[in-house]
Amino acid sequence: MPQRLHSADTDFERHFRDLLAAKREASVDVEAAVRAILDDVRARGDAALIEYTQRFDALTLTPETLRVSAAEIAAATEATPPETMEALRFAHERIRSHHARQRPSDERYTDALGAELGHRWTAVESVGLYVPGGAASYPSSVLMNAVPAQVAGVERIAMVVPAMRGALNPLVLAAAAVAGVTEIYRVGGAQAIAALAYGTETIPAVAKIVGPGNAYVASAKRQVFGSVGIDMVAGPSEVLVIADGENDPDWLAADLLAQAEHDAAAQSILLTDSAELADAVERAVERQLATLSRSATARESWETFGAVIVVRDLLAEAPALADRIAAEHLEIATDDPDAVFSRIRNAGAAFLGRHTPEVIGDYVGGSNHVLPTARSARFSSGLSVLDFVKRTSILRLSADTLRALAPAAIELARVEGLDAHARSVAIRLNPGA
Amino acid sequence: MPQRLHSADTDFERHFRDLLAAKREASVDVEAAVRAILDDVRARGDAALIEYTQRFDALTLTPETLRVSAAEIAAATEATPPETMEALRFAHERIRSHHARQRPSDERYTDALGAELGHRWTAVESVGLYVPGGAASYPSSVLMNAVPAQVAGVERIAMVVPAMRGALNPLVLAAAAVAGVTEIYRVGGAQAIAALAYGTETIPAVAKIVGPGNAYVASAKRQVFGSVGIDMVAGPSEVLVIADGENDPDWLAADLLAQAEHDAAAQSILLTDSAELADAVERAVERQLATLSRSATARESWETFGAVIVVRDLLAEAPALADRIAAEHLEIATDDPDAVFSRIRNAGAAFLGRHTPEVIGDYVGGSNHVLPTARSARFSSGLSVLDFVKRTSILRLSADTLRALAPAAIELARVEGLDAHARSVAIRLNPGA
Repeated sequence: MPQRLHSADTDFERHFRDLLAAKREASVDVEAAVRAILDDVRARGDAALIEYTQRFDALTLTPETLRVSAAEIAAATEATPPETMEALRFAHERIRSHHARQRPSDERYTDALGAELGHRWTAVESVGLYVPGGAASYPSSVLMNAVPAQVAGVERIAMVVPAMRGALNPLVLAAAAVAGVTEIYRVGGAQAIAALAYGTETIPAVAKIVGPGNAYVASAKRQVFGSVGIDMVAGPSEVLVIADGENDPDWLAADLLAQAEHDAAAQSILLTDSAELADAVERAVERQLATLSRSATARESWETFGAVIVVRDLLAEAPALADRIAAEHLEIATDDPDAVFSRIRNAGAAFLGRHTPEVIGDYVGGSNHVLPTARSARFSSGLSVLDFVKRTSILRLSADTLRALAPAAIELARVEGLDAHARSVAIRLNPGA
Repeated sequence: MPQRLHSADTDFERHFRDLLAAKREASVDVEAAVRAILDDVRARGDAALIEYTQRFDALTLTPETLRVSAAEIAAATEATPPETMEALRFAHERIRSHHARQRPSDERYTDALGAELGHRWTAVESVGLYVPGGAASYPSSVLMNAVPAQVAGVERIAMVVPAMRGALNPLVLAAAAVAGVTEIYRVGGAQAIAALAYGTETIPAVAKIVGPGNAYVASAKRQVFGSVGIDMVAGPSEVLVIADGENDPDWLAADLLAQAEHDAAAQSILLTDSAELADAVERAVERQLATLSRSATARESWETFGAVIVVRDLLAEAPALADRIAAEHLEIATDDPDAVFSRIRNAGAAFLGRHTPEVIGDYVGGSNHVLPTARSARFSSGLSVLDFVKRTSILRLSADTLRALAPAAIELARVEGLDAHARSVAIRLNPGA
């Protein structure tokens, strides 16, 4: 059973703090091992990349077979049932059209003193997209990472995906095909991150690397950061469901289990003002667990990290608790969800109303499913077009405007003890003098 | 003398690559030392913070004297000459009014299938602002870091600044007063970062930490990242000046030295199509070095990392080289600077025309002077209001819209092997069934 907390209890604050502080990920110290791999691939390029792929993925490659061929991608697409291809295309088009609204605008204006100010957004030149192998190899994630980069105008997207003993998930290739990603390499792990960051003879370096991965991939991304950009390092998934008593317990149970089935370290929290609903949801979870293919994972997550919080007044108490939880996914299952949502500051994505299961956002809502985990919604946002563009600020002065700005600049340079700063302005004030 | 490269030379590409690859910062391994400090302050709070301040800053504090008093801030402001206060206020108002244009907008719309989509921006709750002590203690940086946070709507800004043997730079306090920052603690180093990230009895934890610092501060920020957000870790400053032959060599020499005087590891590069101008600028640099208070630092930077690149055709060759350099500061001193700038993708900030020295952007241009260094303009942007807000995506469906989206979502959940995902959607399609 998940833990049950009552906001009316005297020790609620202590229990709630413990819930927030619970470590859901074992910290694996792979830093030194990863450092050695990064250095080796940086120094020896393809040869090192191929050796590590042999060792870790039991796959023998040559520089010629590193890249997945167009024929393989076509074959994977052909092998994918039409209804799956249709679902991928439907998802792709919804994600594309939503993200197209996120393109930021350039600006250029002249202020009261005549200074021309502004900024210009440009796309990152090239992006590496990491796709995990194994159980976490999701075609939907290919779409969610590739589409914002494409909408941003990124000219080159290089995808890497490990192929254990040569096997690639055809759905991942099909999703890449739907997204129009054609540069795909069958490598993974820290060695793939090194190849993307530093380049090899076969794989040109990229400017930024995105996408989820295991502890080795996460450590590699952290270590190459600076040489290239990286996205956030995502932790296990989580959902906070805020619900009044007027909900179907089976619907909410399914939502809680949809997070729990991802990962034993996932976290599902129900926050309600109805103890009856809380009981009914817990019973529904037990019933539904019996028929899940990933029931062992889901049960472990639910029993270890799941929580049910019962409050007296939903509108008065839920927002402050939700802000402290700062959930990746926030469902609000009430008649007037905006009344609750408008009082909440911290959440990666909000799903409003009883007919908006978070799962729609995983696939076909249109918004991105790469979202801040582990309370990082307090300070960060989900993946968007903004992650694939960067801003150059612009300043342009006339001689007269420079004259108007000069005294303050020279004074500040003077008090900061920066003579050349002061001179760089002063010298332009009396040309020919 | 700085190195001279000619794009017409056969070995230009090799020399240019070496220039890009030059390491300007010695990597100091302080990680383990910092880790111990972080853990100690996390465990023991004020007591540990006070001990480290005694040890590293030769300053004895109590929980009561950690915070700089309102009287001390007022005294620093009173001690600051009126013309300096006026310059700070002038800079503050220009920075504020420019950043006020950066507030992003919320959006909410209904798409063709009836799905309500959107996003909402909210301010980060609380921000810690690190201000270095010693030579890098710049009042202008206080404004540049505090103002975007305030414009974003951050409710609490806590500033930390080390006070070696008790001494605080009154100009830093005066700048804080001008910006309206009143919560200031006289602590620095990794111990101050730990206090901001984890909180102590006296200093409540913040959600994000920004501001420059030495190797200890940079390592501490990297290590607490995840618990809190951080800004980029800035390296030594740099400028690329693209100039035709029609420039006053003294103006450009002053601009190159304005970067060089910051730090021996700073980098100033002149890129021109005029070998005569290149010679004249080098002579002017030598002349001007003689009268700089920081001439030793500036000379070391210029001779070690400075470079003069001579090309045959500025418009044809400069943009591609500039994109590879991806400079923090880019000056374009030509008659039609936009013709060059429009072909360049990677730069932190652009200063266009002969009357726009980069130094204006350091102080009173209005745009931010916290900018991406070390080629990170390829994938990141300068500090802005966007760094102090985060986005929550919003989805709201009706029963009918859910029905329209359901088949594709269920199909994708099915092929990803996520039963509870499929059920979470399917169960809502036949209520009561």
